[in-house]
Amino acid sequence: MKTLNDYIEKLNKLNFKEMYNNDFLLTWEKSDDELEAVFIIADALRFMRENNISTKVFESGLGVSLFRDNSTRTRFSFTSACNLLGLEVQDLDEGKSQIAHGETVRETANMISFMADIIGIRDDMYIGKGNAYMREVSEAVQQGNKDGILEQRPTLVNLQCDIDHPTQSMADMLHIIHEFGGIENLKGKKIAMSWAYSPSYGKPLSVPQGIVGLMTRMGMDVVLAHPEGYEIMSEVEDVAKANVAKSGGSFTKTNSMEEAFRDADIVYPKSWAPFVAMEKRTDLYEKGDSDGIKALEKELLAQNAEHKDWACTEEMMKLTKAGKATYMHCLPADITGVSCKEGEVDASVFDRYRIPLYKEASYKPYVIAAMIFLSKFENPQATLKALETAAKQRKSD
Amino acid sequence: MKTLNDYIEKLNKLNFKEMYNNDFLLTWEKSDDELEAVFIIADALRFMRENNISTKVFESGLGVSLFRDNSTRTRFSFTSACNLLGLEVQDLDEGKSQIAHGETVRETANMISFMADIIGIRDDMYIGKGNAYMREVSEAVQQGNKDGILEQRPTLVNLQCDIDHPTQSMADMLHIIHEFGGIENLKGKKIAMSWAYSPSYGKPLSVPQGIVGLMTRMGMDVVLAHPEGYEIMSEVEDVAKANVAKSGGSFTKTNSMEEAFRDADIVYPKSWAPFVAMEKRTDLYEKGDSDGIKALEKELLAQNAEHKDWACTEEMMKLTKAGKATYMHCLPADITGVSCKEGEVDASVFDRYRIPLYKEASYKPYVIAAMIFLSKFENPQATLKALETAAKQRKSD
Amino acid sequence: MKTLNDYIEKLNKLNFKEMYNNDFLLTWEKSDDELEAVFIIADALRFMRENNISTKVFESGLGVSLFRDNSTRTRFSFTSACNLLGLEVQDLDEGKSQIAHGETVRETANMISFMADIIGIRDDMYIGKGNAYMREVSEAVQQGNKDGILEQRPTLVNLQCDIDHPTQSMADMLHIIHEFGGIENLKGKKIAMSWAYSPSYGKPLSVPQGIVGLMTRMGMDVVLAHPEGYEIMSEVEDVAKANVAKSGGSFTKTNSMEEAFRDADIVYPKSWAPFVAMEKRTDLYEKGDSDGIKALEKELLAQNAEHKDWACTEEMMKLTKAGKATYMHCLPADITGVSCKEGEVDASVFDRYRIPLYKEASYKPYVIAAMIFLSKFENPQATLKALETAAKQRKSD
Repeated sequence: MKTLNDYIEKLNKLNFKEMYNNDFLLTWEKSDDELEAVFIIADALRFMRENNISTKVFESGLGVSLFRDNSTRTRFSFTSACNLLGLEVQDLDEGKSQIAHGETVRETANMISFMADIIGIRDDMYIGKGNAYMREVSEAVQQGNKDGILEQRPTLVNLQCDIDHPTQSMADMLHIIHEFGGIENLKGKKIAMSWAYSPSYGKPLSVPQGIVGLMTRMGMDVVLAHPEGYEIMSEVEDVAKANVAKSGGSFTKTNSMEEAFRDADIVYPKSWAPFVAMEKRTDLYEKGDSDGIKALEKELLAQNAEHKDWACTEEMMKLTKAGKATYMHCLPADITGVSCKEGEVDASVFDRYRIPLYKEASYKPYVIAAMIFLSKFENPQATLKALETAAKQRKSD
Repeated sequence: MKTLNDYIEKLNKLNFKEMYNNDFLLTWEKSDDELEAVFIIADALRFMRENNISTKVFESGLGVSLFRDNSTRTRFSFTSACNLLGLEVQDLDEGKSQIAHGETVRETANMISFMADIIGIRDDMYIGKGNAYMREVSEAVQQGNKDGILEQRPTLVNLQCDIDHPTQSMADMLHIIHEFGGIENLKGKKIAMSWAYSPSYGKPLSVPQGIVGLMTRMGMDVVLAHPEGYEIMSEVEDVAKANVAKSGGSFTKTNSMEEAFRDADIVYPKSWAPFVAMEKRTDLYEKGDSDGIKALEKELLAQNAEHKDWACTEEMMKLTKAGKATYMHCLPADITGVSCKEGEVDASVFDRYRIPLYKEASYKPYVIAAMIFLSKFENPQATLKALETAAKQRKSD
Repeated sequence: MKTLNDYIEKLNKLNFKEMYNNDFLLTWEKSDDELEAVFIIADALRFMRENNISTKVFESGLGVSLFRDNSTRTRFSFTSACNLLGLEVQDLDEGKSQIAHGETVRETANMISFMADIIGIRDDMYIGKGNAYMREVSEAVQQGNKDGILEQRPTLVNLQCDIDHPTQSMADMLHIIHEFGGIENLKGKKIAMSWAYSPSYGKPLSVPQGIVGLMTRMGMDVVLAHPEGYEIMSEVEDVAKANVAKSGGSFTKTNSMEEAFRDADIVYPKSWAPFVAMEKRTDLYEKGDSDGIKALEKELLAQNAEHKDWACTEEMMKLTKAGKATYMHCLPADITGVSCKEGEVDASVFDRYRIPLYKEASYKPYVIAAMIFLSKFENPQATLKALETAAKQRKSD
């Protein structure tokens, strides 16, 4: 039987001291030890919750959320994570269209942070903006803390940006760690991160980018598949290449979904927009060129429609390892005949994998809570141990 | 003087074990013992709050709220109830017009529930939809819990649907229990649930339906009065008939407000829309027939205007038992000369009953908290006792 | 080194017993002792938070917020204050345009208050409305408490009205108390509350009014400077005159910014709308005269544009005491060349004072928390002492 000590002993072997008082913005800025620490703390927090041990480590304090795009799943995950640790969420609703600059960002960041322990931001709409904005906020509050304005340094969690979606990719990986029985078992496994057709256009690139940027860390054989013209950011491809050089895995690209699926242990078929189109859209938005935006939309939908054969059908699944690859998705999926006429995945495939898919999603609140925990507690092992000793019930008997 | 033990002893005599880990969707799905348990726990929680004893039974956990219609009173009641027990409210704002179906409901229900202990839903707009939607959500999260996706089963509280409004009718009943000095004293009392004129149209049927579905349980003489054409759901009338067969009370219908008010101990005059009109409106909304909706609105307003004499005037009040019946309303009321030119009730009548009316409303947060409490704690007597023993102050000295 | 006892001993010398169970609506309704008590409790709460001592004095309870105008800073300050003390914020979103009257105010005030310990209202849009509305809410809940509807009396905090902005002016004053090394050191200091040009129009009068209404209490030489036609409410000028008669300071008015700045120890240059124009606007809104409103806007912008020379430039700053007056602002400021072409203050001046300006803002959550604390605890010294003794950490080790 698992005990909290099992998790603590695993943590003892890792070096993650740089995470203390630090942000979580891109997985590839973190060491392998640091990523593993997130997984272990996430599992430890889940273990404690399952055993009705309170993990409330804050008596007061705010978790500030800023969603520049509609969000239900990520919003609930962030709220759940903050609540699990004792932080209250206060949303900063700046309006979707408004992009603050310079002085305003610095000032607003400080004004909302007097009692903020954590700031979670989702800003995935515009290329070159989201991650940069997070760094601007982070620098503002670090400076505010140094200048004696803020008594604590609010740390940031990237809840999705134009480049990466670390809380998603980390939850995805924690899921396959459990599916395959340990992080060490991921080595040598083939994962197909594949584009798939969707009748909607302009889905963010951060999921495929996050997946190839993270999964290449673990010695996996990562295949990125998409029709010509659906390239992701070249910088992230460079990250993937550098990762495999270190991890001993491989990173290949193909324009054939079949090739990617063949003998794959894991498939992740999902629509996204071409990077260059998203760059163009960002420019059009900056210019306020609404005719240009409409024209681009039309063009992109037409381009998508040429690739309706990129779908995760029963036929395609048969190509995978023993026909039984783990099917992954960040949800919601475009399910053929269910949520749309033609989409990313056959209804029968989706149905067969629904339970593991929902479990995949269930890791996100814990992953976010673990990121917060590691950024706030210098000795998380001791903090966990103290919670176990206090043995306060999450829910009374 | 009351002690917590008085409440606990009353609970000891009741059988409510089926409420544990269960939803509260319709009062007529609950046994008499179960309803009484809600009243007792509500009173016990109020007693403890009045005596500054903390009733916080959750260290963390979410109360998810979903309001498909604007709401101030019910929203505050739900938030108050959750806060009293230690749960944090996170609102799911799906937009009023959007009605999710099938796969989406199942998925969303699970995605918001990883750390949800309770889900409160108000969905009263469309006939045949609200209660059905709640059941769909409930089944989704029960299945999620069975499948190991959700570590706990989030239970549901119906915050108003197309059929019933149990938190309202239970608060109303708790009010008259206190007004008449005990649940046993309701036997033989006459209550008039009467339609009344309002210049607005389309008010929900759930209040009159909730009242006749509940008040017929207690041996009361329940009279449902409305002009011809303002019938409520026949299924609920059947419930009322079955209730009186068991409780020994009576359920009669009349098209005369005078008849209903004559010698009544309690009057509940309130506007509602005809059931058949609401069914028609639901169809029109489904078809997106906005011209049809406008025509129906006009027709309903004209129909209402024929019954301006259905008002709770001073004259009408004189017909009641000693001219002093308890006047009830779920609030806000349409008060003649105050909130509208001609409405449900005379200003002088409303004024005379304002304090008890506000008290009536004050039971709702406690009734909701009691429903949550009974669905979450297997042995609520022990849980209450432990809170008394812990003797933590709600508010410091 | 400071200890909590230092604060407690200071409190022991003051008489603030009237603050218990009372509102905070206008600074000039409070005695000097009462204002000082707010400053001391604010500092004490900050001291405890800096020393990681939990100041959670509520296990449950709501802080109801009502913002009739957009707000980020004040919203976060109120949430932070409530959270620091253990109250959960529930927002009452009535919609900006809707102004409730009479019966509705009384009813709504009671309906949201069953578990509310504090109500924070911002209502600064219409002359003659905001403060009056707060008093209406306050009277409603006091009566509700007397009538046995509400178990506690929710007390009110004015988060900005048409007359005063006490949480702002008190935070401003706490800032200069610290800048000048003590409240006693403010005596004889010259402060220039000056109008300044902004390209936007219709900024609230509550800041200059709040400043002259408060700063005249402390024996300061308060100069109110503005172009002709930008008069503030005469009632507040009367308050300022009465204050200096008691405090030994002075209150003068001038139409010369230079005169105000000359030898000033503190300058507070900020745009506001003329009181008479705001009165006119209120009438136009009441009549729903949108053409009239547009015409007034145009007129006011043109009037503003005649006074672009009213700016806090480097030249102007040189006029102040040793060229080094403390520069104050409630933020956000209209910074020339940064947030607008021509505005209230030179970028270089603003930049030089940014850190103290942000610190000035940092007092607001503590000032609000102190106002809540004093209204809720009859013996705040004992309550503070008990928190120190309990020594619960705000954030675990």
